[in-house]
Amino acid sequence: MKFLTVPTSTRIEIVDITDKLREMVKNNGWSEGIVTVYCPHTTAAITINEAADPDVRADILETLNKLVPYNDNYAHIEGNADAHIKSSLVGSSQQVIIEHGRLVLGTWQGVFFCEFDGPRQRKVYVKFVSG
Amino acid sequence: MKFLTVPTSTRIEIVDITDKLREMVKNNGWSEGIVTVYCPHTTAAITINEAADPDVRADILETLNKLVPYNDNYAHIEGNADAHIKSSLVGSSQQVIIEHGRLVLGTWQGVFFCEFDGPRQRKVYVKFVSG
Amino acid sequence: MKFLTVPTSTRIEIVDITDKLREMVKNNGWSEGIVTVYCPHTTAAITINEAADPDVRADILETLNKLVPYNDNYAHIEGNADAHIKSSLVGSSQQVIIEHGRLVLGTWQGVFFCEFDGPRQRKVYVKFVSG
Repeated sequence: MKFLTVPTSTRIEIVDITDKLREMVKNNGWSEGIVTVYCPHTTAAITINEAADPDVRADILETLNKLVPYNDNYAHIEGNADAHIKSSLVGSSQQVIIEHGRLVLGTWQGVFFCEFDGPRQRKVYVKFVSG
Repeated sequence: MKFLTVPTSTRIEIVDITDKLREMVKNNGWSEGIVTVYCPHTTAAITINEAADPDVRADILETLNKLVPYNDNYAHIEGNADAHIKSSLVGSSQQVIIEHGRLVLGTWQGVFFCEFDGPRQRKVYVKFVSG
Repeated sequence: MKFLTVPTSTRIEIVDITDKLREMVKNNGWSEGIVTVYCPHTTAAITINEAADPDVRADILETLNKLVPYNDNYAHIEGNADAHIKSSLVGSSQQVIIEHGRLVLGTWQGVFFCEFDGPRQRKVYVKFVSG
């Protein structure tokens, strides 16, 4: 298992980690298989979406804030209940195919770390299984 | 890595790809392991749900449209911001267990391609890892 | 493939299955790889979130009920359309890394079975792939 460090700079934010993943795949000589990109935090998540236009990420966050507001009479008293809920909606990991030593993403896709309770210094675990 | 082609016929639609996957598993002699069913598009997704009653798929789409409307003052100006957001909520891939050369699904489960910005000619990547 | 049995005791409920998974990893001598925790039911799901404070689970369920109400003029007439929709939003499986014979979870994380149409006797399929 390898890991990335992802510093975040505001409460809710989507950070592109595609280049860091590509570098990791190359540096470790991973050739054919599946890589699991895993978020070990309960107030954050991993998603795959469009990398070209950052407005897409802004729209995702805006909609998540409408669906799961920061304040909503939550039972959890730490002030980050919304972040936990967002984490379960988006998901704690994503799987990406590796072929010929490269991440196989669609033309417009990137891999993103979703921060819902920052700013913090975060980690992403990355596990490659060949096959 | 193998792939399926999935033609879609309307803007938002859920297409059953279970039979195509079963055929792929059989034709490739995949016996024991995990198959990753991956959507390389950022305005579509993969889900697993009930295959028997198509009303379930209609209800999923109807609810997604209520939660993430087509028009909502989005920043992304291509007219498909809702499709990107739905993609991140549903997820870009699903994993299915393979045993004795067969997809291991629950009694009522099927695997579905979710189109959120069609109609288009789509692809689904399928990667088998034995184990 | 192995499986867990998960009895649920009410209509909508989140059950911690982390200890059962840890025991399974240990009893089977799984050492390095990925474990897929898979829900074969179409009105239930698997999620990873905070295990410490049960209020987090209550908040997740409360918000899911707001977003996807029990009654909403659904087409599916079995009275559990909401459960199917919640299942696709949360997801039918989660992947967890195994290292040195142990589940690699973040400090606060646990693995949970999400019941959306109980009470029932449920199963969770667990597949380990080494790598």
